[in-house]
Amino acid sequence: MSQLPQQPAEPPVPTSADVARLAGVSRATVSYVLNDTAAVRISDATRRRVRQAADDLGYVPHAAARSLRAGHTRTVLLPTVHIPAGPLYRRFHDEFQWTLRELGYTVVQYGSAGMDGDEAARAWAELRPVAVVSLSGTLTARGVAVLKRAGAKAVITLGSRPVPGAHTVVMDQREVGRRAAAHLLERGYRRIGVVLPGEPGLDLLSGPRLDGVRETVAGTGTPVVPLPLDPSEEAAARTAARCRRERLDAVFAYNDEYAMLLMRALQDAGTAVPGEVAVMGADDLFLGRLLRPRLSTVRIDMETGQRLAELVDRAVREPRSLPERQDLMAARTVPRDST
Amino acid sequence: MSQLPQQPAEPPVPTSADVARLAGVSRATVSYVLNDTAAVRISDATRRRVRQAADDLGYVPHAAARSLRAGHTRTVLLPTVHIPAGPLYRRFHDEFQWTLRELGYTVVQYGSAGMDGDEAARAWAELRPVAVVSLSGTLTARGVAVLKRAGAKAVITLGSRPVPGAHTVVMDQREVGRRAAAHLLERGYRRIGVVLPGEPGLDLLSGPRLDGVRETVAGTGTPVVPLPLDPSEEAAARTAARCRRERLDAVFAYNDEYAMLLMRALQDAGTAVPGEVAVMGADDLFLGRLLRPRLSTVRIDMETGQRLAELVDRAVREPRSLPERQDLMAARTVPRDST
Repeated sequence: MSQLPQQPAEPPVPTSADVARLAGVSRATVSYVLNDTAAVRISDATRRRVRQAADDLGYVPHAAARSLRAGHTRTVLLPTVHIPAGPLYRRFHDEFQWTLRELGYTVVQYGSAGMDGDEAARAWAELRPVAVVSLSGTLTARGVAVLKRAGAKAVITLGSRPVPGAHTVVMDQREVGRRAAAHLLERGYRRIGVVLPGEPGLDLLSGPRLDGVRETVAGTGTPVVPLPLDPSEEAAARTAARCRRERLDAVFAYNDEYAMLLMRALQDAGTAVPGEVAVMGADDLFLGRLLRPRLSTVRIDMETGQRLAELVDRAVREPRSLPERQDLMAARTVPRDST
Repeated sequence: MSQLPQQPAEPPVPTSADVARLAGVSRATVSYVLNDTAAVRISDATRRRVRQAADDLGYVPHAAARSLRAGHTRTVLLPTVHIPAGPLYRRFHDEFQWTLRELGYTVVQYGSAGMDGDEAARAWAELRPVAVVSLSGTLTARGVAVLKRAGAKAVITLGSRPVPGAHTVVMDQREVGRRAAAHLLERGYRRIGVVLPGEPGLDLLSGPRLDGVRETVAGTGTPVVPLPLDPSEEAAARTAARCRRERLDAVFAYNDEYAMLLMRALQDAGTAVPGEVAVMGADDLFLGRLLRPRLSTVRIDMETGQRLAELVDRAVREPRSLPERQDLMAARTVPRDST
């Protein structure tokens, strides 16, 4: 009698009206139960019936509809960054996200590869986030304004320059250079090279680290020689030769990986580490302990992701509070055998 | 006459009606222009006027409203994964995201730390994504069904087991073990250890790699000894002692970092590498070339992120196509001096 369809039709997406019909309640009741609205008193039996009906139908609330009704979302937008991130940063990031979720936010990471700052801000604004935490340093005052006009209650940027209208989180990389230089001075080194990695994006970190070294040696008569270095063995061999030519007695090698690269090149060329040239890294990677000599390094202790999450929450709840500036970084020396 | 407010009022969020009023056009025209609807003919002058008005007011379209009108979003949801990701994986991921954006999708990464599979699937479904690409291996058939009922046209999982209803992307880790074993057999080694890292999450990769080694040596009379190893120097010293006790002549050390750890422990104990025990890594990290002897390794060539993005797009446009299974990984040996 009935004609078989050529292919199975896709079932319609279930709506809250379907749930209401199955549970024998109003759509408003469905909405109250599934959005956990505490203000409305609904019996446990009804709550169970609604949840069961939603489960049977495979219904989940629509975040977009909810945010249109509420006039805002609970979305915290984290534009993804493309700096080469170490394990330390990832732990910080995990803890940050976890705490935001505990505080009731939806954390959305948003890939903005290939967009410039203002273009990215407009794309983020379309999602109507309640807060944006941008760690890339590309957000301008104009971008912040676009986000605020679109309802964002808090915009938080990472960087040494404050952006008007935004809270600023600082990780002052100069401190890493200061610690390295203080350690090298203390051990008696008096001609210091500082590696500047050639990888794109790292100059945001390496420039301030060099500044920190310069600040610390100021007045001691210690020359500081910037050493641009690409991540290749050939480049490292040239830099090792330059260390000898310039009679450097110590190098702060930007991080542990560049320290490992340079140390290998020095040793391959017959230069004793630390006897002729001391080498110091940063990050305290596990690998540093496996080198011979064991690598001296600067350990970077980031304030917990939890503190940043709490700053976000405070800024969302008090959107008119004055912009805060919080330094999330501290650094300390881990002396070993390479210096 | 008028009373000054205690504190400045927040300006209202501008709407498309405000833009329409300022530009002297209808709201529909604003929507057509700002959403780049090609089907509707609108003069360039009008388009410019609308864009200017939106700019002046700081208006951006509301993604939620647009997706409610359209009945679906262009959101591809990428739940974030917590496996320790190397640079290879990050490059793949960047290319994947970039291609999706070029294809007109909005890529949203979603942190689901602390949620189990089905709970996470419901949270993802609330965002009404058009596709979900889950690389974590926690999605069940039930979770896939929830997502599809919420309108997802494609669900793609990563893992060796296919999940009913989802397309499967495979990165067959056994291949890494097969390559390592074939290389060690070819070089004449006949008692092979295989490192199993103690870090949580890595068993998803190390188990199949061990299986690959076993497959390859089957029938050659070569014993294979699993070597659980925590990432510490003390544990590595014990494993180095065990290598000698069990008279192993070669170890496939899971990856380059564990290879470095074990090689250091062997050398510190006076064991010659590769003379007494050969050591092989995987990943072809840059660091491997800095070791002495230089580290032999298995290089993992992932198919480009572009291919995965194209699979997503195809799956979205043909939601009833049969589930595909695509292998994204190939591996090859990079022989150096440690084997």
